[in-house]
Amino acid sequence: MTFNLTIIGSGSGAPLPGRFTSAQVLNVHERFVLIDCGEGTQINLRRFGINFNRIELILISHLHGDHYLGLPGLLNTFHLLGRTKELHIAGHRKLKELIDFIFKIAGFEPSYPIHFHVIDYFEPNYQLLFPSYSVNFFSLLHRIKATGFRISEIGTSEKISKEFIAKYKPDIETIQALKTGNEFFDNDGNLIPRSEIFIHASPPRSFAYASDTVFSRDIIPHIENANLLYHEATYASALQVSAVEKMHSTSVDAATIALEAKVKKLAIGHFSSRYKVPDLLLEEAKAIFPNTIACSDGLKIEI
Amino acid sequence: MTFNLTIIGSGSGAPLPGRFTSAQVLNVHERFVLIDCGEGTQINLRRFGINFNRIELILISHLHGDHYLGLPGLLNTFHLLGRTKELHIAGHRKLKELIDFIFKIAGFEPSYPIHFHVIDYFEPNYQLLFPSYSVNFFSLLHRIKATGFRISEIGTSEKISKEFIAKYKPDIETIQALKTGNEFFDNDGNLIPRSEIFIHASPPRSFAYASDTVFSRDIIPHIENANLLYHEATYASALQVSAVEKMHSTSVDAATIALEAKVKKLAIGHFSSRYKVPDLLLEEAKAIFPNTIACSDGLKIEI
Repeated sequence: MTFNLTIIGSGSGAPLPGRFTSAQVLNVHERFVLIDCGEGTQINLRRFGINFNRIELILISHLHGDHYLGLPGLLNTFHLLGRTKELHIAGHRKLKELIDFIFKIAGFEPSYPIHFHVIDYFEPNYQLLFPSYSVNFFSLLHRIKATGFRISEIGTSEKISKEFIAKYKPDIETIQALKTGNEFFDNDGNLIPRSEIFIHASPPRSFAYASDTVFSRDIIPHIENANLLYHEATYASALQVSAVEKMHSTSVDAATIALEAKVKKLAIGHFSSRYKVPDLLLEEAKAIFPNTIACSDGLKIEI
Repeated sequence: MTFNLTIIGSGSGAPLPGRFTSAQVLNVHERFVLIDCGEGTQINLRRFGINFNRIELILISHLHGDHYLGLPGLLNTFHLLGRTKELHIAGHRKLKELIDFIFKIAGFEPSYPIHFHVIDYFEPNYQLLFPSYSVNFFSLLHRIKATGFRISEIGTSEKISKEFIAKYKPDIETIQALKTGNEFFDNDGNLIPRSEIFIHASPPRSFAYASDTVFSRDIIPHIENANLLYHEATYASALQVSAVEKMHSTSVDAATIALEAKVKKLAIGHFSSRYKVPDLLLEEAKAIFPNTIACSDGLKIEI
């Protein structure tokens, strides 16, 4: 089952011709989640061949421009493309106000329903559920309220074996009942053990997103054991003081969190424009957490 | 004296990788006016080597996303670049509300003063004056309130001759007085004729911008004899019905207006994304108004 991440924008602050601001598309079993949406996101979505209509959920971490200013234009383009499929957006309630205002001054209603999930004051363990995945939310420590996300596959841990289906030809209702824990008896009334019905597929994979944030161990319980962690690394370690002052992280901060949270892989991004290439940041992170990669616009990471 | 136009975005509706939405930079004697600011404008400004700090005035024609959604990001970037120079913006009062809201939710004030000129209900003959140019405003006919602009050079029609200055060494006050019409007498009390004081430079040039608009002769008095007219041409003439329905213009509409307004040159743009190249639109316009060019991102037009 597909589970991969495409980096749409890997920069910070202001979009540059070769490095747009924050945006990523997570493909979970061909359902797309757009995470953050900096200016120009729709341009890079086209450039990287992302099907706009597959995007069903947009998560916005916080209301600094480099994380959301591409959203109004994308919503406008969905409308121009005649979208009718409902769209979910999770973000700060002020984002909803802004979107409503922008449609109002443009003089039209979008052609598709928008379900807005307010996440600025979510309860602990707040979760959104979609057919193939769940989204958990956690607080980041930044200059303004910011939220991290953990997206986990659901429904993939157990699968009904082909042999079982060929032998007993269960109908859909029976299969659904089995999945929710019902027992199964053959025509002679013998209980068929679950080990003969189900095969264990790979355990559910998960992706965690932490941007923007200063170094904070508080996020570790929310991201532990993730298959992939994206953690911002705006600065190299020499600029630790600037990082703390601006409530951003260094490459060393990101790698330390990845190590302590026992994630399987780390992707760093949100690079300051002072780094023409992120080689130094990658090198510093790898010294602490070897399985690190540096994001670039268009990079696709299989999870 | 420099007077040229750089096309930043020549498309309509949604930005595409090779054709961004509406934005143009008019260079008047090295002072820059940004006209409209679609999403990604700042990316193309960098790509085309435009000095951000020279932009002193931004004119926004109307509040459809493809004409202004790059503005919040550009204003944010001015701040990140540490701009202190004041910025003038002319647009609908709702645009001011939007900008204020976006800075508020981002949690900071811009590092530079913004002077906002509300133009949604301007008086006839409303004009803004800057040291090298004036801006006149006129109404366009579109689905929502939209405004056209005419930017004209000032102060270039007459220049004091070098010979006069060398001979009489007038002080600054005397020069200013001469420019406002005072007479000049030499030490012997002889009146020096103005023809010996002034040389006639080229007459002031002007650029007129009309986008978005349906075909309307009402704009002709405001744009006549312009050295360059930019007029939207969203559709080819075969889509005249769509043009009227959506209150846009065809290439034939644009060329007809250019012809009747006796402008010297016409630039067409705001092309619908259905035209991969604007060859047909250019051909149709040229059949009516031969001195027409088709805009493309990065095109520079000397006026």
